[in-house]
Amino acid sequence: MSVTWPRGFVASGMAAGVKPDGIADLALVAAVTGAVPAAATFTTNKACAAPVIVSRKHLAATKGRAAAVVLNSGCANAATGRSGQLAAERMAAAVAGPLGVGANEILVCSTGLIGPALPIGVIEAAAPALVGRRGPSADDAKAAATAILTTDTHPKQVRRAGRNFRVGGMAKGAGMIAPQMATMLAVLTTDAGVSPALLRSVLHGAVDRTFNALLVDGCTSTNDTVVALASGEAGEVGAAELATTLAEACADLASQLAADAEGATRVARVVVAGAVDDEDARHAARAVAGSLLVKVSLYGADPYWGRIVSELGASGVAFDPDRVRVAYGATTVVAGGVAVEHDWAAAAEHLAGTHVEISCDLGLGDGVASVLATDLGPGYIEENRRTS
Amino acid sequence: MSVTWPRGFVASGMAAGVKPDGIADLALVAAVTGAVPAAATFTTNKACAAPVIVSRKHLAATKGRAAAVVLNSGCANAATGRSGQLAAERMAAAVAGPLGVGANEILVCSTGLIGPALPIGVIEAAAPALVGRRGPSADDAKAAATAILTTDTHPKQVRRAGRNFRVGGMAKGAGMIAPQMATMLAVLTTDAGVSPALLRSVLHGAVDRTFNALLVDGCTSTNDTVVALASGEAGEVGAAELATTLAEACADLASQLAADAEGATRVARVVVAGAVDDEDARHAARAVAGSLLVKVSLYGADPYWGRIVSELGASGVAFDPDRVRVAYGATTVVAGGVAVEHDWAAAAEHLAGTHVEISCDLGLGDGVASVLATDLGPGYIEENRRTS
Repeated sequence: MSVTWPRGFVASGMAAGVKPDGIADLALVAAVTGAVPAAATFTTNKACAAPVIVSRKHLAATKGRAAAVVLNSGCANAATGRSGQLAAERMAAAVAGPLGVGANEILVCSTGLIGPALPIGVIEAAAPALVGRRGPSADDAKAAATAILTTDTHPKQVRRAGRNFRVGGMAKGAGMIAPQMATMLAVLTTDAGVSPALLRSVLHGAVDRTFNALLVDGCTSTNDTVVALASGEAGEVGAAELATTLAEACADLASQLAADAEGATRVARVVVAGAVDDEDARHAARAVAGSLLVKVSLYGADPYWGRIVSELGASGVAFDPDRVRVAYGATTVVAGGVAVEHDWAAAAEHLAGTHVEISCDLGLGDGVASVLATDLGPGYIEENRRTS
Repeated sequence: MSVTWPRGFVASGMAAGVKPDGIADLALVAAVTGAVPAAATFTTNKACAAPVIVSRKHLAATKGRAAAVVLNSGCANAATGRSGQLAAERMAAAVAGPLGVGANEILVCSTGLIGPALPIGVIEAAAPALVGRRGPSADDAKAAATAILTTDTHPKQVRRAGRNFRVGGMAKGAGMIAPQMATMLAVLTTDAGVSPALLRSVLHGAVDRTFNALLVDGCTSTNDTVVALASGEAGEVGAAELATTLAEACADLASQLAADAEGATRVARVVVAGAVDDEDARHAARAVAGSLLVKVSLYGADPYWGRIVSELGASGVAFDPDRVRVAYGATTVVAGGVAVEHDWAAAAEHLAGTHVEISCDLGLGDGVASVLATDLGPGYIEENRRTS
């Protein structure tokens, strides 16, 4: 039970034939009443995919309302030009008809290989069945969450309760993940009563602190999309509480993405404090989290903090080498910019776990930021060396 | 014959005991006449190492003159605070005495692990012998080039003749390599007669187009230094010819570094043309060259151009997805932003070689840039997962 847990939503998933071998590849999340307040954040990549262009256009045309999201895996429909946009429009229309809503009330998401043309014929052929089998059960939600997976090893779902409302969500991730939208799709639902404008502001805030603070490989994909739909069935709710609950749901999904990232064996939370401001802190945390050498050390569970100090210094933020402090878990290994005596066994034991905390204090101000990073081992290379 | 090929230089290398097991770790390159015009470029990392701080100070004090460079491998003397700077000063003084020059006429370079204290005692003990065995032969130059290696598999040396002058050089690289100075040390010598100011300008230009256009892992190290010394024994030379010859020598060393990068099996030249200006072109080329996914595809010899288009779009430069063209070698695989029919076998064969050309045309203007990239395979991870 995830996207259908909030009242007013149905979902479905099936194998349409985009992927070979009858693997699930087409999903639907719909509001039962037709168009409801909707918001989305999209990739910042200028080579954005056709479904991103089409969904953005639809949301603008409806002034922030949508009846459903249709999603496919197995093909990103990216770098496909004008014919790719037509295919994305046809994908929206294919579910709009059976749902009895306008095509621009449908948002479209795709994920998979960049370049190949979307096999829109098989999607159009499957759309009536996809709509026909939609339902509110946990199985329906799981079928949708399963049909959007690519190299993920399992579906990612979440539910979070507010005082009088619910938030549900599903996501896929795996590779090509960096802040400013990961290679990821996520759909959040809520039964909270909220205006499109408020939903948008709350969603942007939540994404910024969660999905955009996740760094697997530094690659910002062409298709990243997070959609939120609000059915309103729970009536009006406090904006602050909705923001908190939605952010918690996003954070949960983001950490599920990190844990299931391609080839990852270990997840690190990189916290940078003491920066001159939050922007600097975030920039420095991303530099550490995105560093190949830091990631490879993380894979090796090697407490080589020199690479962390080097990345902080190279990140371009205000930095005084004589003030930096670094800790693995509770073990401080560097203070005042130089090595300090410490419990090597404790640091090594912390690093050998599956969840690592790397804390850096720049000693300059009050700026703080936190980024989730994965390690880099042979699994990532094996997963990505050949796509064909 | 490399740094001692230009007239007026001697060199030596030996095992001082910084590294265990009697491996060579201390090198000297000296002008025979004492202080000569000298220039250097240093890492942009704010966590720069003690030898960088000391060398910068010495060059400023002498207004661009130096008698020698002393270099050690096995310890970076970085993140070592005030005592690290004292050690670097002592390292300069240790060779200045036997050479009969002032300590601030000595430039100091270190490379190796970040964090540990420099074992300055063993360096001071070895310095008289290092100075004593200095000589002008090819063996002397090779001994120096060998003593600066870390994970490099072989010494990198170069020589280039101008019309009436010579340029020689040596370098080390291997890992932590990115533009804005790679993890690398290089010493260039020339017998050209040139002022410190002109030498500096010529060196900066050459480094910018060569070492700074080399991207192994995106990590900008704490110790990067390129030093040039000019003995003047060949008399005055044309600035343009010196610039060209020095740049050729640097380019040769840079491609030796790329070919011997940690774990690399393949080197790609990423050329971006058609950008709105050279700055955009360089930025886009670095985004492609630095992309984990592009590097892993390169390792797999996989013609997955979607990742290249995605990185161009995500790089932040002016970009129109409908104009981009991408080619592997002579085979265009994308034009007008979409896949084009092409000779798959030719593209695959090109990618399977050890030197790959990836050409991207953004179709927007006249900006051009070229960056050298290495692939990323299990060898890099094996090399870097544990440092202890």
